[in-house]
Amino acid sequence: MDNFTFYAPTYFDFGRNAEEHVGSLIRRFGGRKVLLHYGGGSIKKSGLYDKVVKCLDDEGISYGELGGVKPNPRSGLVYEGIEMCRDEGCDFILAVGGGSTIDSAKAIAAGSCYDGDFWDFYTKKAVIEKALPVGTILTIAAAGSEGSTNTVITNETTGVKTGAGSDLLRPKFSILNPELTCTLPPYQTAAGATDIMIHICERYFSNTEEVEITDRLCEAVLKTMIHETPRVIEDPHNYEARANIMWAGMLAHNNVCGVGRVQDWASHHIEHELSALYDVTHGAGLAVIAPAWMRYVLQINPHKLVQFAERVWDVLPQAESGSGTDEETALLGIEKFEAFLKSIGMPLSFAEIGADAKDIDRLTEKLLAGKETEGNYVKLKAEDVKCIYRSVCED
Amino acid sequence: MDNFTFYAPTYFDFGRNAEEHVGSLIRRFGGRKVLLHYGGGSIKKSGLYDKVVKCLDDEGISYGELGGVKPNPRSGLVYEGIEMCRDEGCDFILAVGGGSTIDSAKAIAAGSCYDGDFWDFYTKKAVIEKALPVGTILTIAAAGSEGSTNTVITNETTGVKTGAGSDLLRPKFSILNPELTCTLPPYQTAAGATDIMIHICERYFSNTEEVEITDRLCEAVLKTMIHETPRVIEDPHNYEARANIMWAGMLAHNNVCGVGRVQDWASHHIEHELSALYDVTHGAGLAVIAPAWMRYVLQINPHKLVQFAERVWDVLPQAESGSGTDEETALLGIEKFEAFLKSIGMPLSFAEIGADAKDIDRLTEKLLAGKETEGNYVKLKAEDVKCIYRSVCED
Repeated sequence: MDNFTFYAPTYFDFGRNAEEHVGSLIRRFGGRKVLLHYGGGSIKKSGLYDKVVKCLDDEGISYGELGGVKPNPRSGLVYEGIEMCRDEGCDFILAVGGGSTIDSAKAIAAGSCYDGDFWDFYTKKAVIEKALPVGTILTIAAAGSEGSTNTVITNETTGVKTGAGSDLLRPKFSILNPELTCTLPPYQTAAGATDIMIHICERYFSNTEEVEITDRLCEAVLKTMIHETPRVIEDPHNYEARANIMWAGMLAHNNVCGVGRVQDWASHHIEHELSALYDVTHGAGLAVIAPAWMRYVLQINPHKLVQFAERVWDVLPQAESGSGTDEETALLGIEKFEAFLKSIGMPLSFAEIGADAKDIDRLTEKLLAGKETEGNYVKLKAEDVKCIYRSVCED
Repeated sequence: MDNFTFYAPTYFDFGRNAEEHVGSLIRRFGGRKVLLHYGGGSIKKSGLYDKVVKCLDDEGISYGELGGVKPNPRSGLVYEGIEMCRDEGCDFILAVGGGSTIDSAKAIAAGSCYDGDFWDFYTKKAVIEKALPVGTILTIAAAGSEGSTNTVITNETTGVKTGAGSDLLRPKFSILNPELTCTLPPYQTAAGATDIMIHICERYFSNTEEVEITDRLCEAVLKTMIHETPRVIEDPHNYEARANIMWAGMLAHNNVCGVGRVQDWASHHIEHELSALYDVTHGAGLAVIAPAWMRYVLQINPHKLVQFAERVWDVLPQAESGSGTDEETALLGIEKFEAFLKSIGMPLSFAEIGADAKDIDRLTEKLLAGKETEGNYVKLKAEDVKCIYRSVCED
């Protein structure tokens, strides 16, 4: 186990009607003038917007508002938010929405306290040293941004989609009411579930040995997702299944499932190029890439894939039967994972997400810009990445 | 799943030599005048005391010191600590030791900010509204106090051993260096491991349905303990196993494994009477009580014990074979747990811990003082508690 630090000081208020506490939570964490940040019209249609505004009014909290966050959130709106925060003297950002809205809010929070271009944090030219406090009301279980240090933004000028992170970006509070996710359509629900599972996989596939506790936690979240996801696809209004997924989504990305080890993150980065270029739903892109990544790295470094198959997918150890091999065990696990993704309506190929084999060189070049390799479980060179992309273009 | 809040803002610094950061961590969390609180001579023998003092000196942090914390920490030393904090104007308490030292530090932290008798928090006459910040350097993996809201103290005057809790008592930081636990003798190591496992069991045995994610996390910690504990009993200097146990111990009690459900806590409370009366090591007392509690409640409410057997102890479902029953499955699980405890050197009977059957009425009376029942998974009346105590007196 590697040395690590872990600091996750977000206050979570979880359950039915939790959003009613938003006013008092903002007060508790020192907010007086709020930037209310959200996406499209869904929170207005659902009545959540009115509820939130009423809570702020009841608590006497003034606010400016900035809607319009899109999936794969863009730099343009971040600049707008930074300007608003400065002009209106906002001292707190409330994100109401999914991971895109929260990521955008985090970018505004850091950018507002920085004299330069906020994009410097994403190019690693600058380190986040200060940020406005952020609170969230989560409406989609997926990105885990409600408990994480991270933010991913797409730069509209360059087409680069990339992340920044800091302990300063952990939300002060996050309100998680599973009821708010019950109206989410099956495709978005499944894409969110896939994102959650791959957040775990990125942490699980590690060559750091002897981190049994973290392995077991990862497996716990994956097992939960395997159990609960089909239940919400079947019945979107299943509160209990939604609740388990919502909390699993937070745990999958606040890094409690990642400490003490080198993490991978190749699948996410390989996918980011797809969502940057084709604007595909991140989770759907991951459903295409992650199993393909697994099949590819299996040939090079099978050991953790064997454990994944046995412990997560209950595959019987093939080698023990005498006639099989560990690789066969691992492959059966990957096949079960692919079947699972298919069963919840996720794509598994380039064709299904509108991606095109002719872009593979370009995707790879952007991914590796300035880097020799991608990922850690297996260090992938350009040709490896192309093989992974190509493997999902066939048939 | 029940509504819940979760707020665990402790900064964890985990790994080899982490104690070297103690000075800068105290500074980071605002300490200027520290009360250095510890137990007996073990931290002096090991050199940890000198290391800590040097770090404080290097950082220019002044300190008073109060050693002498005993296992099952006493109220007397808490009063002394409160007086010292007031006299010397301490604004931070650094606990160096195990759960007893940390619990004592938390009591001093709350008591120093309260005009009345600190014991009021333990009798529930008063609620903790303010506390000095506490930091910890942990030397025993067991109590989980390094990440928890809780403190358990024994009142020397009344012989009552009981707890108090508040989010204000979460340590600001906890330093977890597994090397510091490598010199712990096998019996204390095993007792600590037992305490960790029962912290999980108290949260696992719940009638709240549909909390799959929390169940799975509990099982993850238990599986880890089953794997790692025999390794440290065999080789106390196995850093990796010590590390997994140390982190599991924190996770077992910061409540990430307990949210969304009604918890039980009968085994702990039934045991507290034993350690209050006989001064037995808490974990050893739990080894006697917890399996006895399981055998008793099995007759009344088997469902979660069946899951415990199947998922934690890999017992095959006996009912599925046609000839067996769920109760048989559960019983096989309990037997495996008892065999495990025995294998790591833990006691399973009153005789082994020097407890006496003639005290059962008195133990039960003190336990239930003013209450109708104890626990939640099964609500135990006086006669039930006596049956549990009696069941470990036979043979």
